[in-house]
Amino acid sequence: MVTVAVDGMGHDEGPAGIVAGAKDAAAEGVRVLLCGIREQLEAELGGSVDGIEIVDAAEVIDPSDEPATAVRAKPGSSMVTACRLVRDGSAEAVVSGGPAGAMLAASLLHVGRIRGISRPGIGVPLPAQGAPCLLIDSGANSDARAENLLQFGIMGSQFMRDVMGIETPSVGLLSIGEEPSKGNAVTVEAHPLLAAADIDFAGNCEGRDVLSGRFQVVVADGFAGNVLLKGLEGAAAALLGEVRRAAESSTRAKIGGLLLRPALRAMRDRTEPDNYGGAYLLGLRGVVVIAHGNSGRKGIRNAIRIAARGAEVGVVGRMAERLAPDRPTSDLQAPAAINTVPQVTAPEIGDQ
Amino acid sequence: MVTVAVDGMGHDEGPAGIVAGAKDAAAEGVRVLLCGIREQLEAELGGSVDGIEIVDAAEVIDPSDEPATAVRAKPGSSMVTACRLVRDGSAEAVVSGGPAGAMLAASLLHVGRIRGISRPGIGVPLPAQGAPCLLIDSGANSDARAENLLQFGIMGSQFMRDVMGIETPSVGLLSIGEEPSKGNAVTVEAHPLLAAADIDFAGNCEGRDVLSGRFQVVVADGFAGNVLLKGLEGAAAALLGEVRRAAESSTRAKIGGLLLRPALRAMRDRTEPDNYGGAYLLGLRGVVVIAHGNSGRKGIRNAIRIAARGAEVGVVGRMAERLAPDRPTSDLQAPAAINTVPQVTAPEIGDQ
Repeated sequence: MVTVAVDGMGHDEGPAGIVAGAKDAAAEGVRVLLCGIREQLEAELGGSVDGIEIVDAAEVIDPSDEPATAVRAKPGSSMVTACRLVRDGSAEAVVSGGPAGAMLAASLLHVGRIRGISRPGIGVPLPAQGAPCLLIDSGANSDARAENLLQFGIMGSQFMRDVMGIETPSVGLLSIGEEPSKGNAVTVEAHPLLAAADIDFAGNCEGRDVLSGRFQVVVADGFAGNVLLKGLEGAAAALLGEVRRAAESSTRAKIGGLLLRPALRAMRDRTEPDNYGGAYLLGLRGVVVIAHGNSGRKGIRNAIRIAARGAEVGVVGRMAERLAPDRPTSDLQAPAAINTVPQVTAPEIGDQ
Repeated sequence: MVTVAVDGMGHDEGPAGIVAGAKDAAAEGVRVLLCGIREQLEAELGGSVDGIEIVDAAEVIDPSDEPATAVRAKPGSSMVTACRLVRDGSAEAVVSGGPAGAMLAASLLHVGRIRGISRPGIGVPLPAQGAPCLLIDSGANSDARAENLLQFGIMGSQFMRDVMGIETPSVGLLSIGEEPSKGNAVTVEAHPLLAAADIDFAGNCEGRDVLSGRFQVVVADGFAGNVLLKGLEGAAAALLGEVRRAAESSTRAKIGGLLLRPALRAMRDRTEPDNYGGAYLLGLRGVVVIAHGNSGRKGIRNAIRIAARGAEVGVVGRMAERLAPDRPTSDLQAPAAINTVPQVTAPEIGDQ
């Protein structure tokens, strides 16, 4: 049984949704250490629940706090407490829906980095055709070196394989042309490194291909990755707004919109962020899931589920092994330790 | 009367659409120098047309040609010939729908840069809420310095004001957070330069805000700009594909889709790229419009119309004046020469 530390206070609207999601996860066999203000959490739990233990944490990190400062100034916060449970071995994974910047800082400080990783990366699963596509780095590092991009590719690939059950994730390098020579100085340097790595590298990926289903991992520096991620969000919002306005532009269109609504709802459900629980911070000594601050019960349940699966399959240990700085290169070409591990069943992400 | 040189062969499907668009523009009073293979162009023109003259150019630059090589190897091509007409003063603006990379190279080589501009930038108008938003640079330069971003801001602002008739274009700096300190090394350095420039600088713009209507110019290095541009295209394609599939998922949805179709068509027409004629290459000694290789008649007409308007209002001269390297800084703060020029009427972009 795996143990997941959960920040019980890390939600825009208080602990109710977190507790509900934690109950669901506990019912599925995950042990949850719920960190936060005991009275509030007990009130939401409504009595003792099998598989859930409360860990006292009196402080809460607020979205208005400056992230790095808050993490140092509030050592007794629910977020820091949850991260520390991973550091001290009480839990193998941590989930927080608190402010993302603070969670990044808290994880770096209190979970700690895998040896050889200078820059952990944020992986965000995008609703691409057929299977999710992990965009890594989605914003942890605003400047990156080629070596960082290589590590993002290896970590992202391992994560999608072990945790998302995609046997041979196709890895793309975000760039501005298909040829290896196209891109900026960093991507041009990173291209041959990724091509030589023991991953299924499929070359450069342009912005328009990220959702196409051709790639299950897309590697980027955190600046371009974040610009792209938010661009996709903005395009979706703008376009759905246009469709909505079009569906209100005439009586005929209104009726059409009403008839189409259930199908559009199903589409929205298929692509909603709660399906994947949030973002994954890769490169740390524990599985770290940054849940959305407005996750519903399902979002929190899926965040805990993915954290638990990552812990169960030992994805962090496998990443560490592949990324060890003193590992001989020949070893990187023959990943026997990885290929002999039995394939995990695909996670039931997104079921209702 | 302004004269626009048009690459008569620069279209994926031959000269028919270009000639039709050129006729429309000529009928509106633009003088067109149509460069290409005389027999083909004459056949399409079907007799002499007021305002259109054919300039012989026997070669054609092909999408399969390596851009920079082709421009040097085919000095008699329709594209190079059109650019040279600007250089020698026979035309004030040039339009080509030929391969964009080749047009970039041809313009740099044969139109030439404004003094003080090391990196011209590609401005692409995006269909933002209310008014178009010019994303500059959309891919001419894969690496940029802060000084380049400053010049993009000044040039983009001047273009949107003079050519698109937006009186005070709000300029944003593409970044990954609203605070000036957020971004990569180049954007953080560029922020105070843009803030001190004589433009309406509104601070950082995140990827999700590009289409919001808050900004009419968004400044980016060509790598992030191109990633964003193609990401927006990819998101639109993916989402419209989803809507289409949703509209075929049941009989009810099918009927809804049919009823909604006219409204969705109107939306598509409002946002289609042909409305703006293409991309604008800013920083050169002439107005350069890179039309889409698959532009319709309307797209070519609008490309020529925008090129003509740019020439008419003297946008290149005004940019050169603002960007002159030996211009005293105090002068930059008091753009009397710009503010006293009468406001041009808004271009009739996008009318059918």
